[in-house]
Amino acid sequence: MPTVRLVPESEATGKVREVFDDIKRTRGLDRVPNIWRALATNPTHLETSWERLKLIMADGALDRRTKEIIALAVSITNGCDYCINSHTAALQRLGLTTEGLGELIAVVDLFNAMNRVAEAYQIEPDVRPKVDP
Amino acid sequence: MPTVRLVPESEATGKVREVFDDIKRTRGLDRVPNIWRALATNPTHLETSWERLKLIMADGALDRRTKEIIALAVSITNGCDYCINSHTAALQRLGLTTEGLGELIAVVDLFNAMNRVAEAYQIEPDVRPKVDP
Amino acid sequence: MPTVRLVPESEATGKVREVFDDIKRTRGLDRVPNIWRALATNPTHLETSWERLKLIMADGALDRRTKEIIALAVSITNGCDYCINSHTAALQRLGLTTEGLGELIAVVDLFNAMNRVAEAYQIEPDVRPKVDP
Amino acid sequence: MPTVRLVPESEATGKVREVFDDIKRTRGLDRVPNIWRALATNPTHLETSWERLKLIMADGALDRRTKEIIALAVSITNGCDYCINSHTAALQRLGLTTEGLGELIAVVDLFNAMNRVAEAYQIEPDVRPKVDP
Amino acid sequence: MPTVRLVPESEATGKVREVFDDIKRTRGLDRVPNIWRALATNPTHLETSWERLKLIMADGALDRRTKEIIALAVSITNGCDYCINSHTAALQRLGLTTEGLGELIAVVDLFNAMNRVAEAYQIEPDVRPKVDP
Amino acid sequence: MPTVRLVPESEATGKVREVFDDIKRTRGLDRVPNIWRALATNPTHLETSWERLKLIMADGALDRRTKEIIALAVSITNGCDYCINSHTAALQRLGLTTEGLGELIAVVDLFNAMNRVAEAYQIEPDVRPKVDP
Repeated sequence: MPTVRLVPESEATGKVREVFDDIKRTRGLDRVPNIWRALATNPTHLETSWERLKLIMADGALDRRTKEIIALAVSITNGCDYCINSHTAALQRLGLTTEGLGELIAVVDLFNAMNRVAEAYQIEPDVRPKVDP
Repeated sequence: MPTVRLVPESEATGKVREVFDDIKRTRGLDRVPNIWRALATNPTHLETSWERLKLIMADGALDRRTKEIIALAVSITNGCDYCINSHTAALQRLGLTTEGLGELIAVVDLFNAMNRVAEAYQIEPDVRPKVDP
Repeated sequence: MPTVRLVPESEATGKVREVFDDIKRTRGLDRVPNIWRALATNPTHLETSWERLKLIMADGALDRRTKEIIALAVSITNGCDYCINSHTAALQRLGLTTEGLGELIAVVDLFNAMNRVAEAYQIEPDVRPKVDP
Repeated sequence: MPTVRLVPESEATGKVREVFDDIKRTRGLDRVPNIWRALATNPTHLETSWERLKLIMADGALDRRTKEIIALAVSITNGCDYCINSHTAALQRLGLTTEGLGELIAVVDLFNAMNRVAEAYQIEPDVRPKVDP
Repeated sequence: MPTVRLVPESEATGKVREVFDDIKRTRGLDRVPNIWRALATNPTHLETSWERLKLIMADGALDRRTKEIIALAVSITNGCDYCINSHTAALQRLGLTTEGLGELIAVVDLFNAMNRVAEAYQIEPDVRPKVDP
Repeated sequence: MPTVRLVPESEATGKVREVFDDIKRTRGLDRVPNIWRALATNPTHLETSWERLKLIMADGALDRRTKEIIALAVSITNGCDYCINSHTAALQRLGLTTEGLGELIAVVDLFNAMNRVAEAYQIEPDVRPKVDP
């Protein structure tokens, strides 16, 4: 059960109304997801979170689908149920198949394991990224 | 400093030798990365980890580069220094630009934040993935 | 569903009874919260956890409210549902408004993000705390 | 060692220059911390991160010092070395004593422990925050 | 609710059927646990996960019970509900008493706390494991 | 570099002196490990942490070695370098071989992986621990 009131769309005014409308328009949704309705209790947090999400998730050097894949990998690693449901559904809308989802999860499984091996043995980097001079 | 001896390539025999050779051949490397040399102290763990990694990282519904992107996103979320260095360098070899890396990191930043908002407000899923009947 | 029997207050005797009474008296509660009833299956763990909590949460250089704010920030970062509910309610009893809660969550969101940026780019400290000579 | 070039202040132009100047002015620093110089390789990420941090860390229902305390509690829980150094030093500048820091750490210690007890026994919430109707 | 269809035992064929049968035989169960039925949507992931688990969990330098204890300690630290339920039940089948479980949880509590103290104060190792020359 | 002064043994007086002496006597060490010297800046935190550790780590339903194994599994999962070094060395003193350490790490690797699979697919418990009536 949420620890805060989810602002109903019917009550949204001003900045909150604008963000709600923009979320539905940008994502092609017919209702505002719960997380944004919770954030609406702190309109500054709502606005800056949404503006930032729009900027960061736009197609760029990486495309939107790859970015949603990263979002799901992070959410699984953190064990965030709401986020896992939300990004899995988003990836299905973007065409990821059950097979693709299964591979994503296998890679997340694999590197959560390898991360611990590296920590356990306190292994030091043997390769460094190339850094511009 | 590692907590275990890194098995030198010159001493590898039997199953360990085979895995070491396969790692260099498969990844096009001229030396075996430290993590595999540490795992070589437990040959069963070495062999099963490498076989599994090869299977899971092969091109499939997701391509190899997308899989390395997931590996880096997981490693950043877990704060594993060895792994961050290793997967950043691997992605550079696969052609990821500084711009692409910057976008990857921005998405990891964003969803580590959003994950906490969802937890903080104890928000319940409002969308469910489509599950085959 | 709990994985252990929650000891009912009516059955508490000896050390467990004393701790249960002290919890209700100290926190002004009319019943013992579930976490302490679970800990009562291991009376040593119950007693040492409660004595320690009382000591650490007492007003000192930081006041009780600031300490509850830290408790909630930690619980959100770890995604512990029981703890998030419990510390949110405790902060409401201590007078934290929905606005204050919203700001707390925004800060937790922000630094979970910034923590990953610092890890992702493997940034080294450029400022060190002042340490007494 | 950073995995990306830290943009030197002398090379900053345009949006990056503006953010760098604003950071030094707002925080009263004579040089730009490394994390912002790393973010400058992705100017959009730099700008949105800094603008957001300024908004969220401003005095509000919670004061700046309480917000830095939250930032340090989050950074310790995540084990982010850069962030721990940076926020410990920031809290010293804001007047937190060694005694205050010690209490903060004791509370972070305590609830990382209690969080695991709650998970271990799968304890269900027995108190719910009050949610506006 | 699972995000993927759990493959029913009655539909399992080929490799999946073999793994399902082996799981029930090896663990003495009369039905296949949900996690394996979910993994069955990606047969390669299913097979490699099960083969690896069998190898790693077999009695060796550490016995099976000690390995299940490690599994539960990891699952509590990560806050994985499914895994906590599953490994607690497995340990009960292996004879761990409520008292033993309570001690296990107390140790997990203790070192999640001490881990944060070590990070908070950025303490450097003062003892190093002995590494073979 | 530590963020706080490590109290030298030569300066310890009163409660701190007593705890320092007890640590060396109980653990058979000739000097006080760094973590306790850092905690000594907050004598209440030092004393309660040490008393609690002594109680919880004593032989009981689980023996001391099993408890150190849990301590290391937790520390690896959290990626705490100081703690990994310290508990690996402690286990070597208690007779754990390189082979035993390798098995411990393989189990930690395995269940950090399985934990993520369970989260990724949002799998619900299919077995419940037996709880006393």
